[in-house]
Amino acid sequence: MLDSGLIFASDSRTHAGVDNFASFCKMTLFERAGDRVIVLLSSGNLAGTQAVISLLRQRGAREDSPSMWTAESMFDAAIQVSDAMRDVDRRDGQHLADSDIGFNASFILGGQIAGEPPRLFRIYAEGNFIEASAETPYLQTGETKYGKPIIDRVITRSTKLNDATKCVLVSFDSTMRSNLSVGMPIDLLCYKRDSFEAGMRRRFGVGDVYFAELGAQWSEGTRDVFRQLPDLDWASP
Amino acid sequence: MLDSGLIFASDSRTHAGVDNFASFCKMTLFERAGDRVIVLLSSGNLAGTQAVISLLRQRGAREDSPSMWTAESMFDAAIQVSDAMRDVDRRDGQHLADSDIGFNASFILGGQIAGEPPRLFRIYAEGNFIEASAETPYLQTGETKYGKPIIDRVITRSTKLNDATKCVLVSFDSTMRSNLSVGMPIDLLCYKRDSFEAGMRRRFGVGDVYFAELGAQWSEGTRDVFRQLPDLDWASP
Repeated sequence: MLDSGLIFASDSRTHAGVDNFASFCKMTLFERAGDRVIVLLSSGNLAGTQAVISLLRQRGAREDSPSMWTAESMFDAAIQVSDAMRDVDRRDGQHLADSDIGFNASFILGGQIAGEPPRLFRIYAEGNFIEASAETPYLQTGETKYGKPIIDRVITRSTKLNDATKCVLVSFDSTMRSNLSVGMPIDLLCYKRDSFEAGMRRRFGVGDVYFAELGAQWSEGTRDVFRQLPDLDWASP
Repeated sequence: MLDSGLIFASDSRTHAGVDNFASFCKMTLFERAGDRVIVLLSSGNLAGTQAVISLLRQRGAREDSPSMWTAESMFDAAIQVSDAMRDVDRRDGQHLADSDIGFNASFILGGQIAGEPPRLFRIYAEGNFIEASAETPYLQTGETKYGKPIIDRVITRSTKLNDATKCVLVSFDSTMRSNLSVGMPIDLLCYKRDSFEAGMRRRFGVGDVYFAELGAQWSEGTRDVFRQLPDLDWASP
Protein backbone atom coordinates (compact mmCIF):
# COMPACT_ATOMS: atom_id res chain seq x y z
CA MET A 1 0.00 0.00 0.00
CA LEU A 2 1.69 3.13 -1.26
CA ASP A 3 0.83 6.80 -1.09
CA SER A 4 -0.06 6.57 -4.78
CA GLY A 5 -2.09 3.37 -4.72
CA LEU A 6 -2.15 -0.37 -4.12
CA ILE A 7 -0.38 -3.28 -5.80
CA PHE A 8 -1.71 -6.83 -5.58
CA ALA A 9 -0.05 -10.01 -6.79
CA SER A 10 -0.83 -13.69 -6.49
CA ASP A 11 0.54 -16.89 -7.93
CA SER A 12 -1.72 -19.64 -9.28
CA ARG A 13 -0.38 -22.87 -7.90
CA THR A 14 -2.43 -25.20 -5.77
CA HIS A 15 -1.15 -28.58 -4.75
CA ALA A 16 -1.77 -31.65 -2.68
CA GLY A 17 1.80 -32.89 -2.56
CA VAL A 18 4.52 -32.36 -5.20
CA ASP A 19 2.96 -35.11 -7.32
CA ASN A 20 -0.38 -33.33 -7.59
CA PHE A 21 -0.45 -29.67 -8.53
CA ALA A 22 -2.73 -27.51 -10.63
CA SER A 23 -3.33 -23.92 -11.60
CA PHE A 24 -6.14 -21.70 -10.25
CA CYS A 25 -6.38 -17.92 -10.17
CA LYS A 26 -6.19 -16.60 -6.59
CA MET A 27 -7.20 -13.01 -7.35
CA THR A 28 -10.84 -11.90 -7.33
CA LEU A 29 -11.95 -8.41 -8.30
CA PHE A 30 -15.09 -6.52 -7.23
CA GLU A 31 -15.18 -3.35 -9.32
CA ARG A 32 -17.86 -0.69 -9.81
CA ALA A 33 -16.27 2.14 -11.76
CA GLY A 34 -16.33 5.45 -9.95
CA ASP A 35 -17.43 3.84 -6.68
CA ARG A 36 -15.23 0.96 -5.57
CA VAL A 37 -12.38 -1.35 -6.46
CA ILE A 38 -12.00 -4.29 -4.08
CA VAL A 39 -9.38 -7.00 -4.60
CA LEU A 40 -9.36 -10.30 -2.75
CA LEU A 41 -6.29 -12.56 -2.76
CA SER A 42 -6.79 -16.07 -1.45
CA SER A 43 -4.45 -18.53 0.22
CA GLY A 44 -4.85 -21.98 1.69
CA ASN A 45 -7.23 -24.86 1.03
CA LEU A 46 -8.81 -24.33 -2.41
CA ALA A 47 -12.20 -25.84 -1.56
CA GLY A 48 -12.45 -23.35 1.30
CA THR A 49 -11.35 -20.25 -0.62
CA GLN A 50 -13.57 -21.07 -3.62
CA ALA A 51 -16.59 -21.58 -1.36
CA VAL A 52 -15.98 -18.21 0.31
CA ILE A 53 -15.71 -16.44 -3.06
CA SER A 54 -18.84 -18.18 -4.39
CA LEU A 55 -20.76 -17.05 -1.31
CA LEU A 56 -19.52 -13.47 -1.72
CA ARG A 57 -20.57 -13.45 -5.38
CA GLN A 58 -24.00 -14.98 -4.66
CA ARG A 59 -24.64 -12.46 -1.92
CA GLY A 60 -23.47 -9.70 -4.24
CA ALA A 61 -25.98 -10.79 -6.88
CA ARG A 62 -28.93 -10.45 -4.47
CA GLU A 63 -30.11 -6.89 -3.99
CA ASP A 64 -31.66 -7.35 -0.56
CA SER A 65 -28.66 -8.55 1.43
CA PRO A 66 -25.44 -6.92 2.62
CA SER A 67 -22.56 -7.65 0.25
CA MET A 68 -19.30 -6.38 -1.22
CA TRP A 69 -21.44 -3.94 -3.23
CA THR A 70 -23.29 -2.47 -0.26
CA ALA A 71 -20.27 -2.27 2.09
CA GLU A 72 -19.84 1.37 3.10
CA SER A 73 -16.16 0.92 3.95
CA MET A 74 -13.30 -1.50 3.39
CA PHE A 75 -13.75 -2.49 7.03
CA ASP A 76 -17.33 -3.54 6.18
CA ALA A 77 -16.01 -5.44 3.16
CA ALA A 78 -13.57 -7.30 5.42
CA ILE A 79 -16.52 -8.18 7.69
CA GLN A 80 -18.34 -9.59 4.64
CA VAL A 81 -15.39 -11.85 3.83
CA SER A 82 -15.05 -12.87 7.47
CA ASP A 83 -18.76 -13.74 7.70
CA ALA A 84 -18.55 -15.86 4.53
CA MET A 85 -15.49 -17.67 5.92
CA ARG A 86 -17.30 -18.46 9.14
CA ASP A 87 -20.34 -19.70 7.23
CA VAL A 88 -18.15 -22.08 5.22
CA ASP A 89 -16.35 -23.16 8.39
CA ARG A 90 -19.68 -23.88 10.10
CA ARG A 91 -20.64 -26.14 7.20
CA ASP A 92 -17.29 -27.86 6.54
CA GLY A 93 -15.22 -27.39 9.67
CA GLN A 94 -16.22 -30.49 11.62
CA HIS A 95 -16.03 -32.72 8.54
CA LEU A 96 -12.51 -31.55 7.83
CA ALA A 97 -11.50 -31.89 11.47
CA ASP A 98 -12.72 -35.51 11.38
CA SER A 99 -9.97 -36.13 8.80
CA ASP A 100 -7.42 -34.09 10.76
CA ILE A 101 -7.66 -31.22 8.27
CA GLY A 102 -8.34 -27.66 9.39
CA PHE A 103 -10.25 -24.91 7.58
CA ASN A 104 -7.17 -22.94 6.62
CA ALA A 105 -8.42 -20.42 4.04
CA SER A 106 -7.02 -16.93 4.54
CA PHE A 107 -7.23 -13.75 2.51
CA ILE A 108 -5.67 -10.43 1.70
CA LEU A 109 -8.30 -7.80 1.00
CA GLY A 110 -7.59 -4.32 -0.26
CA GLY A 111 -9.00 -1.53 -2.32
CA GLN A 112 -10.88 1.71 -2.06
CA ILE A 113 -14.53 2.62 -1.59
CA ALA A 114 -15.62 6.18 -2.41
CA GLY A 115 -15.41 8.37 0.69
CA GLU A 116 -12.38 6.54 2.14
CA PRO A 117 -8.67 6.33 1.42
CA PRO A 118 -7.38 2.99 0.12
CA ARG A 119 -7.13 0.32 2.84
CA LEU A 120 -5.53 -3.09 3.10
CA PHE A 121 -6.35 -6.05 5.36
CA ARG A 122 -5.15 -9.54 6.10
CA ILE A 123 -7.94 -11.89 7.16
CA TYR A 124 -6.91 -14.96 9.13
CA ALA A 125 -8.51 -18.40 8.85
CA GLU A 126 -10.51 -17.67 12.01
CA GLY A 127 -12.10 -14.66 10.34
CA ASN A 128 -10.41 -12.01 12.47
CA PHE A 129 -8.22 -9.54 10.62
CA ILE A 130 -5.49 -6.90 10.78
CA GLU A 131 -5.07 -3.73 8.74
CA ALA A 132 -1.85 -2.45 7.17
CA SER A 133 -0.43 0.74 8.66
CA ALA A 134 2.18 3.38 7.97
CA GLU A 135 4.86 1.33 9.79
CA THR A 136 3.99 -1.91 7.98
CA PRO A 137 2.43 -0.95 4.65
CA TYR A 138 2.41 -4.40 3.06
CA LEU A 139 0.90 -7.80 3.86
CA GLN A 140 1.75 -11.29 2.64
CA THR A 141 0.16 -14.67 3.04
CA GLY A 142 1.28 -18.20 2.14
CA GLU A 143 5.04 -18.59 1.50
CA THR A 144 6.11 -15.20 2.79
CA LYS A 145 9.77 -15.55 3.73
CA TYR A 146 11.77 -15.75 0.50
CA GLY A 147 10.09 -12.69 -0.98
CA LYS A 148 10.13 -10.50 2.11
CA PRO A 149 13.69 -9.09 2.35
CA ILE A 150 13.60 -7.35 -1.01
CA ILE A 151 10.30 -5.65 -0.14
CA ASP A 152 11.74 -4.54 3.20
CA ARG A 153 14.77 -3.02 1.50
CA VAL A 154 13.04 -1.26 -1.33
CA ILE A 155 9.47 -0.33 -0.47
CA THR A 156 8.38 2.69 1.52
CA ARG A 157 5.01 4.40 1.38
CA SER A 158 6.48 6.94 -1.07
CA THR A 159 7.87 4.39 -3.55
CA LYS A 160 6.40 4.99 -7.00
CA LEU A 161 3.89 2.51 -8.39
CA ASN A 162 6.09 1.52 -11.35
CA ASP A 163 9.14 0.81 -9.14
CA ALA A 164 7.05 -1.08 -6.59
CA THR A 165 5.53 -3.15 -9.38
CA LYS A 166 8.99 -4.35 -10.41
CA CYS A 167 9.84 -5.10 -6.78
CA VAL A 168 6.70 -7.22 -6.32
CA LEU A 169 7.54 -9.23 -9.44
CA VAL A 170 11.13 -9.82 -8.31
CA SER A 171 9.81 -10.85 -4.90
CA PHE A 172 7.63 -13.49 -6.57
CA ASP A 173 10.49 -14.59 -8.81
CA SER A 174 12.67 -15.16 -5.73
CA THR A 175 9.90 -17.11 -4.03
CA MET A 176 9.27 -19.36 -7.02
CA ARG A 177 12.98 -20.17 -7.27
CA SER A 178 12.90 -21.72 -3.80
CA ASN A 179 9.40 -23.06 -3.23
CA LEU A 180 7.78 -25.44 -5.71
CA SER A 181 4.37 -24.76 -4.20
CA VAL A 182 4.46 -21.24 -5.66
CA GLY A 183 4.13 -21.13 -9.45
CA MET A 184 3.16 -19.23 -12.58
CA PRO A 185 0.97 -17.64 -13.81
CA ILE A 186 1.36 -14.55 -11.63
CA ASP A 187 -1.65 -12.23 -11.54
CA LEU A 188 -0.79 -8.58 -10.98
CA LEU A 189 -3.12 -5.65 -10.37
CA CYS A 190 -2.06 -2.08 -9.78
CA TYR A 191 -4.67 0.35 -8.44
CA LYS A 192 -4.08 4.08 -8.70
CA ARG A 193 -5.43 5.93 -5.67
CA ASP A 194 -8.77 7.74 -6.20
CA SER A 195 -9.11 6.31 -9.73
CA PHE A 196 -11.93 3.90 -8.73
CA GLU A 197 -11.12 1.65 -11.65
CA ALA A 198 -8.81 -1.37 -11.99
CA GLY A 199 -7.07 -0.19 -15.12
CA MET A 200 -3.72 -1.96 -14.78
CA ARG A 201 -3.95 -5.74 -14.80
CA ARG A 202 -1.53 -8.26 -16.21
CA ARG A 203 -1.00 -12.01 -16.09
CA PHE A 204 2.53 -13.43 -16.41
CA GLY A 205 2.68 -16.98 -17.69
CA VAL A 206 5.61 -19.38 -18.03
CA GLY A 207 8.10 -17.92 -20.50
CA ASP A 208 6.79 -14.35 -20.23
CA VAL A 209 9.48 -12.23 -21.88
CA TYR A 210 9.21 -9.22 -19.58
CA PHE A 211 9.18 -11.33 -16.42
CA ALA A 212 12.23 -13.33 -17.53
CA GLU A 213 14.12 -10.19 -18.52
CA LEU A 214 13.28 -8.51 -15.22
CA GLY A 215 14.67 -11.46 -13.24
CA ALA A 216 17.83 -11.59 -15.34
CA GLN A 217 18.50 -7.86 -15.12
CA TRP A 218 17.82 -7.88 -11.40
CA SER A 219 20.37 -10.67 -10.84
CA GLU A 220 22.93 -8.82 -12.94
CA GLY A 221 22.20 -5.53 -11.18
CA THR A 222 22.61 -7.02 -7.72
CA ARG A 223 25.96 -8.56 -8.64
CA ASP A 224 27.08 -5.10 -9.75
CA VAL A 225 25.93 -3.62 -6.44
CA PHE A 226 28.05 -6.17 -4.55
CA ARG A 227 31.12 -5.37 -6.60
CA GLN A 228 30.66 -1.70 -5.73
CA LEU A 229 30.14 -2.23 -2.00
CA PRO A 230 33.25 -1.54 0.10
CA ASP A 231 35.40 -4.63 0.72
CA LEU A 232 35.82 -5.85 4.27
CA ASP A 233 39.08 -4.94 5.95
CA TRP A 234 39.82 -8.15 7.85
CA ALA A 235 42.47 -6.49 9.99
CA SER A 236 40.22 -3.89 11.63
CA PRO A 237 38.36 -4.82 14.85
CA MET B 1 32.06 -23.08 -1.25
CA LEU B 2 33.79 -21.22 -4.05
CA ASP B 3 36.57 -22.12 -6.45
CA SER B 4 38.83 -19.89 -4.40
CA GLY B 5 37.85 -21.06 -0.93
CA LEU B 6 35.17 -21.30 1.73
CA ILE B 7 33.19 -18.71 3.65
CA PHE B 8 31.52 -19.52 6.96
CA ALA B 9 29.18 -17.34 8.99
CA SER B 10 27.06 -17.84 12.07
CA ASP B 11 24.99 -15.66 14.34
CA SER B 12 25.16 -15.92 18.13
CA ARG B 13 21.60 -15.92 19.36
CA THR B 14 20.13 -18.71 21.40
CA HIS B 15 16.71 -18.46 22.90
CA ALA B 16 13.99 -20.26 24.78
CA GLY B 17 11.13 -17.95 23.80
CA VAL B 18 11.35 -14.25 22.98
CA ASP B 19 11.54 -13.46 26.70
CA ASN B 20 14.69 -15.52 27.18
CA PHE B 21 17.59 -15.08 24.81
CA ALA B 22 21.35 -15.06 25.16
CA SER B 23 24.52 -14.94 23.11
CA PHE B 24 26.80 -17.92 22.38
CA CYS B 25 29.34 -18.36 19.60
CA LYS B 26 28.21 -21.05 17.15
CA MET B 27 31.49 -21.33 15.23
CA THR B 28 34.22 -23.77 16.28
CA LEU B 29 37.61 -23.96 14.59
CA PHE B 30 40.02 -26.90 14.39
CA GLU B 31 43.20 -25.58 12.84
CA ARG B 32 46.67 -27.09 12.40
CA ALA B 33 48.63 -24.75 10.16
CA GLY B 34 49.88 -26.39 6.98
CA ASP B 35 47.71 -29.47 7.51
CA ARG B 36 44.04 -28.71 8.14
CA VAL B 37 41.43 -26.06 8.73
CA ILE B 38 38.07 -27.45 9.85
CA VAL B 39 35.16 -25.20 10.74
CA LEU B 40 32.04 -26.40 12.53
CA LEU B 41 28.87 -24.27 12.66
CA SER B 42 26.20 -25.39 15.08
CA SER B 43 22.44 -24.99 15.11
CA GLY B 44 19.66 -26.16 17.37
CA ASN B 45 19.46 -27.04 21.05
CA LEU B 46 22.48 -25.46 22.79
CA ALA B 47 22.96 -28.20 25.38
CA GLY B 48 23.21 -30.68 22.53
CA THR B 49 25.61 -28.71 20.33
CA GLN B 50 27.86 -27.80 23.25
CA ALA B 51 28.04 -31.45 24.36
CA VAL B 52 29.02 -32.53 20.85
CA ILE B 53 31.76 -29.88 20.66
CA SER B 54 33.07 -30.79 24.13
CA LEU B 55 33.25 -34.46 23.09
CA LEU B 56 35.09 -33.56 19.87
CA ARG B 57 37.59 -31.44 21.82
CA GLN B 58 38.12 -34.10 24.49
CA ARG B 59 38.69 -36.77 21.88
CA GLY B 60 41.04 -34.40 20.06
CA ALA B 61 43.11 -33.96 23.20
CA ARG B 62 43.69 -37.73 23.57
CA GLU B 63 46.42 -39.08 21.32
CA ASP B 64 45.18 -42.66 21.15
CA SER B 65 41.69 -42.13 19.70
CA PRO B 66 40.33 -41.06 16.33
CA SER B 67 39.52 -37.35 16.29
CA MET B 68 39.29 -34.22 14.19
CA TRP B 69 43.12 -34.21 14.24
CA THR B 70 43.53 -37.75 12.92
CA ALA B 71 40.76 -37.61 10.28
CA GLU B 72 42.33 -38.33 6.89
CA SER B 73 39.56 -36.57 5.00
CA MET B 74 36.71 -34.15 5.56
CA PHE B 75 34.42 -37.15 5.14
CA ASP B 76 36.16 -38.76 8.15
CA ALA B 77 35.77 -35.50 10.06
CA ALA B 78 32.03 -35.52 9.34
CA ILE B 79 31.91 -39.09 10.67
CA GLN B 80 33.60 -37.87 13.87
CA VAL B 81 30.94 -35.21 14.35
CA SER B 82 28.19 -37.69 13.56
CA ASP B 83 29.57 -40.23 16.07
CA ALA B 84 29.74 -37.56 18.78
CA MET B 85 26.14 -36.51 18.03
CA ARG B 86 24.93 -40.08 18.35
CA ASP B 87 26.84 -40.54 21.61
CA VAL B 88 25.13 -37.44 23.05
CA ASP B 89 21.78 -38.61 21.73
CA ARG B 90 22.27 -42.03 23.37
CA ARG B 91 22.87 -40.32 26.71
CA ASP B 92 20.24 -37.54 26.50
CA GLY B 93 17.71 -38.62 23.85
CA GLN B 94 15.28 -40.57 26.03
CA HIS B 95 15.36 -37.96 28.79
CA LEU B 96 14.52 -35.22 26.30
CA ALA B 97 11.82 -37.34 24.65
CA ASP B 98 10.23 -37.82 28.09
CA SER B 99 9.64 -34.04 28.10
CA ASP B 100 8.52 -34.02 24.47
CA ILE B 101 11.81 -32.44 23.36
CA GLY B 102 13.88 -33.94 20.56
CA PHE B 103 17.67 -33.98 20.16
CA ASN B 104 17.74 -31.35 17.41
CA ALA B 105 21.42 -30.35 17.14
CA SER B 106 22.63 -30.03 13.57
CA PHE B 107 25.86 -28.81 12.04
CA ILE B 108 27.56 -27.40 8.99
CA LEU B 109 31.09 -28.73 8.63
CA GLY B 110 33.61 -27.52 6.11
CA GLY B 111 37.28 -27.04 5.50
CA GLN B 112 40.29 -28.64 3.94
CA ILE B 113 42.66 -31.42 4.97
CA ALA B 114 45.98 -31.73 3.14
CA GLY B 115 45.64 -34.09 0.19
CA GLU B 116 42.03 -33.11 -0.59
CA PRO B 117 40.21 -30.15 -2.08
CA PRO B 118 38.00 -28.11 0.29
CA ARG B 119 34.73 -29.86 1.15
CA LEU B 120 31.50 -28.81 2.81
CA PHE B 121 28.86 -30.88 4.62
CA ARG B 122 25.56 -30.47 6.36
CA ILE B 123 25.03 -32.94 9.19
CA TYR B 124 21.44 -33.57 10.25
CA ALA B 125 20.24 -34.19 13.81
CA GLU B 126 20.16 -37.94 13.10
CA GLY B 127 23.89 -37.88 12.26
CA ASN B 128 23.52 -38.56 8.54
CA PHE B 129 24.89 -35.90 6.24
CA ILE B 130 24.99 -34.42 2.74
CA GLU B 131 27.88 -32.78 0.88
CA ALA B 132 27.74 -29.58 -1.18
CA SER B 133 28.23 -30.01 -4.91
CA ALA B 134 28.86 -27.94 -8.03
CA GLU B 135 25.11 -27.49 -8.57
CA THR B 136 24.44 -26.47 -4.96
CA PRO B 137 27.65 -25.00 -3.58
CA TYR B 138 26.26 -23.58 -0.35
CA LEU B 139 24.50 -24.96 2.71
CA GLN B 140 22.41 -23.28 5.41
CA THR B 141 20.90 -24.40 8.65
CA GLY B 142 18.46 -22.78 11.07
CA GLU B 143 16.45 -19.84 9.68
CA THR B 144 17.38 -20.33 6.02
CA LYS B 145 14.61 -18.66 4.02
CA TYR B 146 15.08 -14.90 4.37
CA GLY B 147 18.76 -15.06 3.48
CA LYS B 148 18.55 -17.52 0.59
CA PRO B 149 17.35 -15.46 -2.42
CA ILE B 150 20.30 -13.09 -2.40
CA ILE B 151 22.75 -15.97 -2.30
CA ASP B 152 20.92 -17.66 -5.18
CA ARG B 153 21.13 -14.49 -7.28
CA VAL B 154 24.71 -13.56 -6.62
CA ILE B 155 26.83 -16.59 -5.79
CA THR B 156 28.35 -19.00 -8.28
CA ARG B 157 31.40 -21.16 -7.76
CA SER B 158 33.52 -18.51 -9.53
CA THR B 159 32.39 -15.56 -7.37
CA LYS B 160 35.38 -13.92 -5.73
CA LEU B 161 35.92 -14.32 -1.99
CA ASN B 162 35.59 -10.60 -1.27
CA ASP B 163 32.28 -10.28 -3.16
CA ALA B 164 30.91 -13.46 -1.61
CA THR B 165 31.88 -12.18 1.85
CA LYS B 166 29.71 -9.10 1.32
CA CYS B 167 26.85 -11.27 0.07
CA VAL B 168 26.98 -13.51 3.14
CA LEU B 169 26.86 -10.47 5.43
CA VAL B 170 23.89 -8.96 3.56
CA SER B 171 22.17 -12.35 3.73
CA PHE B 172 22.54 -12.33 7.52
CA ASP B 173 21.42 -8.71 7.71
CA SER B 174 18.22 -9.62 5.83
CA THR B 175 17.61 -12.58 8.11
CA MET B 176 18.08 -10.57 11.29
CA ARG B 177 15.63 -7.93 10.06
CA SER B 178 12.84 -10.53 9.95
CA ASN B 179 13.63 -13.16 12.59
CA LEU B 180 14.28 -12.16 16.19
CA SER B 181 15.83 -15.57 16.88
CA VAL B 182 18.83 -14.62 14.72
CA GLY B 183 21.05 -11.93 16.25
CA MET B 184 24.46 -10.29 16.53
CA PRO B 185 27.33 -10.85 16.93
CA ILE B 186 27.98 -12.45 13.54
CA ASP B 187 31.11 -14.62 13.32
CA LEU B 188 32.70 -14.70 9.90
CA LEU B 189 35.56 -16.86 8.65
CA CYS B 190 36.97 -16.84 5.14
CA TYR B 191 39.28 -19.70 4.17
CA LYS B 192 41.51 -19.33 1.12
CA ARG B 193 41.86 -22.62 -0.74
CA ASP B 194 45.16 -24.49 -0.17
CA SER B 195 46.28 -21.94 2.46
CA PHE B 196 45.77 -24.36 5.37
CA GLU B 197 45.37 -21.48 7.79
CA ALA B 198 42.33 -19.56 9.00
CA GLY B 199 43.76 -16.12 8.39
CA MET B 200 40.59 -14.13 7.84
CA ARG B 201 38.28 -14.02 10.85
CA ARG B 202 36.06 -11.21 12.04
CA ARG B 203 33.28 -10.72 14.55
CA PHE B 204 30.56 -8.14 13.89
CA GLY B 205 28.84 -6.86 17.02
CA VAL B 206 25.86 -4.56 17.44
CA GLY B 207 26.71 -1.16 15.96
CA ASP B 208 29.60 -2.43 13.83
CA VAL B 209 30.34 0.44 11.46
CA TYR B 210 31.23 -1.68 8.42
CA PHE B 211 28.22 -3.96 8.83
CA ALA B 212 25.81 -1.04 9.17
CA GLU B 213 27.34 0.75 6.20
CA LEU B 214 27.15 -2.40 4.09
CA GLY B 215 23.44 -2.84 4.84
CA ALA B 216 22.69 0.81 4.09
CA GLN B 217 24.63 0.84 0.82
CA TRP B 218 23.02 -2.43 -0.24
CA SER B 219 19.52 -1.03 0.34
CA GLU B 220 20.40 2.10 -1.60
CA GLY B 221 22.00 0.10 -4.40
CA THR B 222 19.00 -2.18 -4.82
CA ARG B 223 16.63 0.79 -5.02
CA ASP B 224 18.83 2.14 -7.82
CA VAL B 225 18.69 -1.21 -9.62
CA PHE B 226 14.87 -1.14 -9.49
CA ARG B 227 14.75 2.36 -10.91
CA GLN B 228 16.92 1.19 -13.81
CA LEU B 229 14.91 -1.96 -14.59
CA PRO B 230 12.54 -1.58 -17.55
CA ASP B 231 9.03 -0.47 -16.57
CA LEU B 232 6.15 -2.82 -17.21
CA ASP B 233 4.03 -2.04 -20.26
CA TRP B 234 0.56 -2.82 -18.92
CA ALA B 235 -0.96 -2.80 -22.39
CA SER B 236 1.15 -5.66 -23.84
CA PRO B 237 -0.18 -9.25 -23.54
